[in-house]
Amino acid sequence: MFLGNDTLTLENRMLCVDGYPFKELAEKFGTPLYVISEEQIKINYRKYIEAFKRYEKETKKNFILAYAYKANSNLAVTKLLAKLGSGADVVSGGELYIAKLSGVPSDRIVFNGNCKTEKEIIMGIEAGIRAFNVDSISELLLIEKLSKDYGEANVAFRINPDVDPKTHPKIATGLKKSKFGMNKEVAKKAIKMALKMKNINFVGLHCHIGSQITDLSPFIEATKKMMEFILELKREGIEVEDLNLGGGLGIPYYKDKKIPTIEDYANALIDTILSYDIHPNLILEPGRSIVATAGYLLGKVIHRKDMWVMIDAGMNDLIRPAIYDAYHHIENAVLKEEKEVVNVAGGLCESSDVFGREREICKPEVGDVLVIFDAGAYGISMANNYNARPKPRMIMTSKRGVFIIREREEYSDLISKDIIPPHLL
Amino acid sequence: MFLGNDTLTLENRMLCVDGYPFKELAEKFGTPLYVISEEQIKINYRKYIEAFKRYEKETKKNFILAYAYKANSNLAVTKLLAKLGSGADVVSGGELYIAKLSGVPSDRIVFNGNCKTEKEIIMGIEAGIRAFNVDSISELLLIEKLSKDYGEANVAFRINPDVDPKTHPKIATGLKKSKFGMNKEVAKKAIKMALKMKNINFVGLHCHIGSQITDLSPFIEATKKMMEFILELKREGIEVEDLNLGGGLGIPYYKDKKIPTIEDYANALIDTILSYDIHPNLILEPGRSIVATAGYLLGKVIHRKDMWVMIDAGMNDLIRPAIYDAYHHIENAVLKEEKEVVNVAGGLCESSDVFGREREICKPEVGDVLVIFDAGAYGISMANNYNARPKPRMIMTSKRGVFIIREREEYSDLISKDIIPPHLL
Ligand SMILES: Cc1ncc(COP(=O)(O)O)c(C=O)c1O
Ligand SMILES: Cc1ncc(COP(=O)(O)O)c(C=O)c1O
Repeated sequence: MFLGNDTLTLENRMLCVDGYPFKELAEKFGTPLYVISEEQIKINYRKYIEAFKRYEKETKKNFILAYAYKANSNLAVTKLLAKLGSGADVVSGGELYIAKLSGVPSDRIVFNGNCKTEKEIIMGIEAGIRAFNVDSISELLLIEKLSKDYGEANVAFRINPDVDPKTHPKIATGLKKSKFGMNKEVAKKAIKMALKMKNINFVGLHCHIGSQITDLSPFIEATKKMMEFILELKREGIEVEDLNLGGGLGIPYYKDKKIPTIEDYANALIDTILSYDIHPNLILEPGRSIVATAGYLLGKVIHRKDMWVMIDAGMNDLIRPAIYDAYHHIENAVLKEEKEVVNVAGGLCESSDVFGREREICKPEVGDVLVIFDAGAYGISMANNYNARPKPRMIMTSKRGVFIIREREEYSDLISKDIIPPHLL
Repeated sequence: MFLGNDTLTLENRMLCVDGYPFKELAEKFGTPLYVISEEQIKINYRKYIEAFKRYEKETKKNFILAYAYKANSNLAVTKLLAKLGSGADVVSGGELYIAKLSGVPSDRIVFNGNCKTEKEIIMGIEAGIRAFNVDSISELLLIEKLSKDYGEANVAFRINPDVDPKTHPKIATGLKKSKFGMNKEVAKKAIKMALKMKNINFVGLHCHIGSQITDLSPFIEATKKMMEFILELKREGIEVEDLNLGGGLGIPYYKDKKIPTIEDYANALIDTILSYDIHPNLILEPGRSIVATAGYLLGKVIHRKDMWVMIDAGMNDLIRPAIYDAYHHIENAVLKEEKEVVNVAGGLCESSDVFGREREICKPEVGDVLVIFDAGAYGISMANNYNARPKPRMIMTSKRGVFIIREREEYSDLISKDIIPPHLL
């Protein structure tokens, strides 16, 4: 029905996901409400697995999908993905905790980040993860030190390939001036250090050039740079088992703009690697392209004022428009003949709390439910309590029914960690 | 010692707040850590009260400071301010809940926002607040409807004065194209409607032109526009009891740039109003200028990589640099002879998670504690759990000692609202 939203249907003018009308979900579960489709997550996940079978077949090496937890680490989502066989890309002790709790096998967990702490490294060593994607020599030295007490550690090195991903600067991560990774010279030095360390196993290379990338050429460029580096290391007698190319494939936020599919992306990567005569295990860390199109944020229209439509969802629920000027498609949950050009705003006292400007949607009246699309990634995971707003409820639709997967916060939750010193009582 | 930070001292090269070295606070309470000074909040609050005494004396009208809860609604902070006599500017049911819990008298509570829900309006009516700052006719009608069942309501109208505050666009709220308020024509119509409504008391006018404003002229311009409107209404026989001029006075984030003080600001407003021969009660809603300079975020240096200093605080703790490109002064908690120009980054997997670029600070080495200044406003109130990072602990320093005022979140808190559907177990 819309690009990327396979599980969406229209019944009696009502938009439905997995067969459930959004309007009814909003009435039953209240607003603001996150809705995520189990079936859409499965579809997105399986597209990757199908598309990369060719890689496994032609190279006899493994393909591992390590879902990027940062996109959405709700426990029902991570459990679902773990059951489907997904690995995990974690970037903190918190994400590692959730991955373990979700039952992800340790040899499918990779740990990213530029600032891993002692506590986090110990957690990773004790879990026996597939790799720390090491960001600096400082980190390597800390891992080595801790490995003496806590056991062997597998390390890969994050390379900064200096590729311009042509995406929003805040999510471009593979440029030279970025805080992430190391250049080839430093990496080579680090690898040689690692190879001499007793409890350290050097297993691979990692890169990640950015997020919401809708042009395949930067991916191809990064893959080539990484493969050239693998060849260079090979000539020096160093073998690279795992090549982790990160995440970053974009999704069609604009419903009228065609962008590469998961299949296109897979074929571009596979063809590039097959053009070399050395083939590592391939790891990818997609986040957005697995969960974004599966998720929706529903808000009820509370007030109208001229062009303005005020809904009860806000930037505290979904901060992407405010932080990245991100576009999210918006439609009335019930289609109508009459359309209107409106601005859709949330209820926070902040000018950037606007979900869309000058959008033509089916006439939004007080009491209507608006559907904000593609809110499954970087939605609830970035939600906050600004303006003392409780985080929303989250439900999962599936063939088996509808399930509450995150309880709505109460006012009391807002202060549950606060303590008043006695003299202020 | 620094502009705006009266409670900061230097002892044996150690930066101290209320006499406590940051270095020792970080060691004792762990990092990342928010520190807020009771004494500095008191100083900032009292500057307002002192400066506006002249208004009360010369006009025989009241001055009410309604602290903007959105800046920081930690319960210890709101309790402290309530004990000092402060009112509250709330923008949600959550903030109203916290204001009531803090013991703020109802006649000192004003309720802002463009999207007040039925539930929130009922809470406000039942609390008997001083005023709903009504944003639209739609809201007025909803308040009227609910007042029939729940009792009388006091309303003021938010005027959009169309003044350019010369601040960051995301926090400029008084421009014509903003989602907030109404123009004079609509307001006049709304006031006349309100005057005819049975359970509705029209009490005043409100405006708010933006935040972090460091030039007095837009404040003066807005005040004049509001006073002219009050005169215009007076000529039509309509009396305005309360004039609420919002918040917005900036603070010296740049420690070398002099900006107007609270006294300068007060005198500008008072002189402007006194130049007219009609004098309403004056309400202000400062947030930032009350708490920003009282707060600090401490992060420990975990790794160094070239120019990069990686600290264990991140954009999930303090999002202002990421969302507004905001500047926060940064210094080593222990001063050293040797200085270095560095980039200070947090530990999140996001390029915008950088606290400062090319900052000259006392050589930051692994294990050092860095102090991020002016983090008392829009810090913890906008904090989130992105990258599955628990929110930090918060402590309050005071003459009476040091108190934990917010418990550090645990990994288990990250999933405490999550529910796994049975079929995914
Ligand atoms: C290291 C790393 N891997 C994977 C991802 C996931 O990217 P995406 O959600 O665009 O697939 C990110 C996102 O920023 C990342 O930083
Ligand atoms: C209506 C209103 N009042 C008061 C404030 C507080 O402003 P500040 O913290 O700049 O004083 C804000 C902030 O955006 C606001 O929107």
